[in-house]
Amino acid sequence: MSREQRRAIAGKLRNAPEQPEAASIDQMRAGFAAFMSQCPVPAGHRETPATLAGRPAVLVEPTGTPRPGTILYFHGGSFSLGSPRTAMGLTANLVLRTGIRALSLDYRLAPEHPFPAGIEDCLAAYRSLLADNDPSSIVFAGDSAGGGLSVTTTLAARDAGLPMPAGIVAFSPGLDHTRSGASLVTKEEADPFFTRESMGETGELYLAGADPAQPLLAPAVHADLTGFPPVLLQVGTNEVLLDDSVRLAERAREADVDVILDITADVPHVFHAFTDTLDEAGQALDRAALFIKQRLA
Amino acid sequence: MSREQRRAIAGKLRNAPEQPEAASIDQMRAGFAAFMSQCPVPAGHRETPATLAGRPAVLVEPTGTPRPGTILYFHGGSFSLGSPRTAMGLTANLVLRTGIRALSLDYRLAPEHPFPAGIEDCLAAYRSLLADNDPSSIVFAGDSAGGGLSVTTTLAARDAGLPMPAGIVAFSPGLDHTRSGASLVTKEEADPFFTRESMGETGELYLAGADPAQPLLAPAVHADLTGFPPVLLQVGTNEVLLDDSVRLAERAREADVDVILDITADVPHVFHAFTDTLDEAGQALDRAALFIKQRLA
Repeated sequence: MSREQRRAIAGKLRNAPEQPEAASIDQMRAGFAAFMSQCPVPAGHRETPATLAGRPAVLVEPTGTPRPGTILYFHGGSFSLGSPRTAMGLTANLVLRTGIRALSLDYRLAPEHPFPAGIEDCLAAYRSLLADNDPSSIVFAGDSAGGGLSVTTTLAARDAGLPMPAGIVAFSPGLDHTRSGASLVTKEEADPFFTRESMGETGELYLAGADPAQPLLAPAVHADLTGFPPVLLQVGTNEVLLDDSVRLAERAREADVDVILDITADVPHVFHAFTDTLDEAGQALDRAALFIKQRLA
Repeated sequence: MSREQRRAIAGKLRNAPEQPEAASIDQMRAGFAAFMSQCPVPAGHRETPATLAGRPAVLVEPTGTPRPGTILYFHGGSFSLGSPRTAMGLTANLVLRTGIRALSLDYRLAPEHPFPAGIEDCLAAYRSLLADNDPSSIVFAGDSAGGGLSVTTTLAARDAGLPMPAGIVAFSPGLDHTRSGASLVTKEEADPFFTRESMGETGELYLAGADPAQPLLAPAVHADLTGFPPVLLQVGTNEVLLDDSVRLAERAREADVDVILDITADVPHVFHAFTDTLDEAGQALDRAALFIKQRLA
């Protein structure tokens, strides 16, 4: 990133309401929403409220005739913040670049609903989609915590005996609540968004005492990915979460699963959201779109 | 791969002339050419003999108006076999899928011309291209040994003070003459083309006594990739060379270089050549084409 690009992204961070020392969850949610609202949402799509297995969702469609298939999208926000609205730029960009509709799920959040509530909601949403859709027509996608959910929901689906979706796209996914990746330390200076400490705080809200050393909480370390569909992991090198993707790619190789580990240098967490600032954002989204179209062809 | 696909690829191997126990280099070259001649070359391109820094080459162009840019292509063949002709299917597929012309270089081969003759030819070809072309308009691409040359030529160019090309595409590259990758053992049963032993034999022709523990002979182990342009590595899991790509991706991450490690499960060495048999071939070529177009945009 150039100094100017850094400044532009730092400016978005500063424009979000200042967080008090001990912010309430409502203050944190408002701050996150204000930050994400500065990320561009492309024109040319239609949003319609929907329901998936009793949870609110947003149907995001191209304005023209869609290609067949469904992207089941899981938003980011450390499992305790965010909504389909905060990820609308990412979701709409995938819809416009693929021509395929997305359903973005408003899954339950911590601390009100800690692990495994979010995964249960994502799994129930997938199960309800399967009533009317072939699994080969469904791709999971998500960013950050939602990227993690795209993987853990697939694990939960496999272990429940459900058929696999056609593919998984994860932008800067969080895949290790044991926080054992070396990049947590080596990238702490480079990461403008997270510190080990800040991740620990939101992580505890989600864990609520659960042992993180299990596949659904640390798939990058503890999951056997046998039977998984192809996985695309896109991540920046200015991220404490870099090694989450690196190690999930290792798990995928071990299980003979197709995996693309797509690393962009010198960009931050979920850089895909900064299409107004970084050329790398649109280019990564185009590669993700090609992956999705290939999976749903 | 299905049993039928395995059979189709094994059939191509059987159709090549049988190799005597101790085949001469000419017999090995004829066998390799006969094998590769069974891989489809797509229609719709034009081939013109050319010269690059005194070495023969083939200019491969789309029949319509080309997009700007040049793919400098290095063919495979264990540094001792092959020619632009044996890689024409791969080269023409990249040209047709990108709309960008390629120059495929007939670099010198071992045992007549061992290390570093091939790298010297590739570097001289790049240097001659730079006389009329901006480095940002040039991408290196290659398969197998040629994928290795796409990386080592970039190393040699950097160390000679030349500007970097816009990107590197390597199909199943050979990147470690120390032969220290775990996949040399773990994938030996799965790999229909190579054994540790057969690789050692052609490797010795190229080494001709040189110490393999150096960046230009084992970049996956010994190279510092600082300053490299973005790299796309595509490799199958049925390959003893799998870990060459895995470890080069690690070297790229260490050097903060953009790198895509694109692994396709259950396909063999340079599966991209089998567009008639494997859907994965065309899909991987399409991802490589998008990468090239993004680098030359």
